[in-house]
Amino acid sequence: MLIRAFVPAHITAFFVPRFNEDPLLAGSLGAGINLSKGTNIFVSIEEGLERHIHIAFNGEPVKKEDAVISYSVANEIIPKDFTGEIEIWQYFDFPNGYGFGNSAGGALGTVLSLAFALKEKTFLQAAQIAHKHEVLHKGGLGDVIAQVHGGIEIRTKPGAPGIGVVDNIFFEGYKVLAVPMGRLPTREVLDSDVVQLIEKEGEKALNTLLSNPKVEVLMKVAREFSERTGLLSGELLEIAKEIDKVLHLPSSMIMLGKSIFALLNENEIEKAKSLLEDLSIEEYHICDVYTQRPSVERWMEGKI
Amino acid sequence: MLIRAFVPAHITAFFVPRFNEDPLLAGSLGAGINLSKGTNIFVSIEEGLERHIHIAFNGEPVKKEDAVISYSVANEIIPKDFTGEIEIWQYFDFPNGYGFGNSAGGALGTVLSLAFALKEKTFLQAAQIAHKHEVLHKGGLGDVIAQVHGGIEIRTKPGAPGIGVVDNIFFEGYKVLAVPMGRLPTREVLDSDVVQLIEKEGEKALNTLLSNPKVEVLMKVAREFSERTGLLSGELLEIAKEIDKVLHLPSSMIMLGKSIFALLNENEIEKAKSLLEDLSIEEYHICDVYTQRPSVERWMEGKI
Repeated sequence: MLIRAFVPAHITAFFVPRFNEDPLLAGSLGAGINLSKGTNIFVSIEEGLERHIHIAFNGEPVKKEDAVISYSVANEIIPKDFTGEIEIWQYFDFPNGYGFGNSAGGALGTVLSLAFALKEKTFLQAAQIAHKHEVLHKGGLGDVIAQVHGGIEIRTKPGAPGIGVVDNIFFEGYKVLAVPMGRLPTREVLDSDVVQLIEKEGEKALNTLLSNPKVEVLMKVAREFSERTGLLSGELLEIAKEIDKVLHLPSSMIMLGKSIFALLNENEIEKAKSLLEDLSIEEYHICDVYTQRPSVERWMEGKI
Repeated sequence: MLIRAFVPAHITAFFVPRFNEDPLLAGSLGAGINLSKGTNIFVSIEEGLERHIHIAFNGEPVKKEDAVISYSVANEIIPKDFTGEIEIWQYFDFPNGYGFGNSAGGALGTVLSLAFALKEKTFLQAAQIAHKHEVLHKGGLGDVIAQVHGGIEIRTKPGAPGIGVVDNIFFEGYKVLAVPMGRLPTREVLDSDVVQLIEKEGEKALNTLLSNPKVEVLMKVAREFSERTGLLSGELLEIAKEIDKVLHLPSSMIMLGKSIFALLNENEIEKAKSLLEDLSIEEYHICDVYTQRPSVERWMEGKI
């Protein structure tokens, strides 16, 4: 049996971490954008005499210690008494660790594919398993619930899907420019002193956005958040300022990666492209906002 | 400016009403199915000197007293100081009052279209307005939040979108047969003594389904609920029994309408069609489950 799933990449514009001993209650407040590119997951399940679970990233098998979240998720949802071969192929449109929610995308795609195949758990029961292991292994706090909802989202209550609350902003005519520049481990930032400043600035950004829920406000408060927390600085800030010159809305930093994002309308695309060429930036993505729920379906077989 | 929205028809399989003085906390527990047919809404907005709001059902203008919910919703979301002509055209794939969530579909489609056009409220703020007027005018308790989520759904916590919780069951290969037979005003049933029996049987059905969340279980508990509450009886029950003869899952009654629904796979469609012909039932619908969120977009103009 072959299952295929798609989970959008999720970029965070600003956030407030909410830690909790119960991983289902832990999460984040904040806002972000789900992209039309992300993680494609292919799962093959064959019954057999022994239990084996294999995971591959972009076609290359990975060891258990390099895919702890997805292995934990798979082990929890696959029944204890199952024997057979399960292969989980995860393909990422963006690099790992750059702030695109790949670990959550892989975990959520894995658990939804297996839940679809096994039909023993509900959607929320499955999604909560992905959230739990993301939180326990510090992959992220809010990506899973944001990816479940899609769109340009505001997280107004922290927690796992079914516990937290995610809202959406209406928008029209915008594409997303994403420029992955480097890694910034979530874990490192969340364990540092910057967290207090993040909480203060994140709450301010959230209140401003909720009182005037427009994408223009989102980009303004996102940029303020990223500069005031000191996360957007140095070379990355210089690049953001260059991009600002050709777009009507401010660009900002992807939380948490050394990456920049911006919203642009159709007639700004060419200007953005030639600027990035001038800056010798070769890797960038222009995609749509993904406004639907993650997809999961049987693959390469009749639909019945 | 022209906006187009689609909200799926929502049929309830079983439910537990949860009344509350605060309409945002009122709602229902239960389970149901969102259909690929439903309500199409077209909204035209033109600024002008006077404020006029017009609503039409299936192309025919309706008076305020015949579309109280949609008029209330429109009046609440349109800013007090707006002047101009707003036309709201609602087209229903199913008849009104037969249990397909038309009033919620019209209200939700109206409010999402206007929120998309005005861009001053979030998705949940808008959807809560639809839920509130549905509850206040006894259109229904759980349709709006179910339609927001899509799919084959289980309502595990009552309330408006953003307050209640909706889960989904994974399924594969099923289409939905819907047979609208007559009206059954929600208001009449909710004001009667049957409510206590509905609560008892509804809770039992919900617990059974949550402990084994499969569509096969859903149809079994739905049928038990509809017979034990006495809602499915007489001629309607006879028709359900006839339909059962050609399908592998039990059919059941749509809450609340004099209507029948069933899940059928591809190779049961022809058998169902000829049976309905034998029974001289001319109006029936075979549709897909709608698994996405309601759509709303600018209509007949460039997307930018």
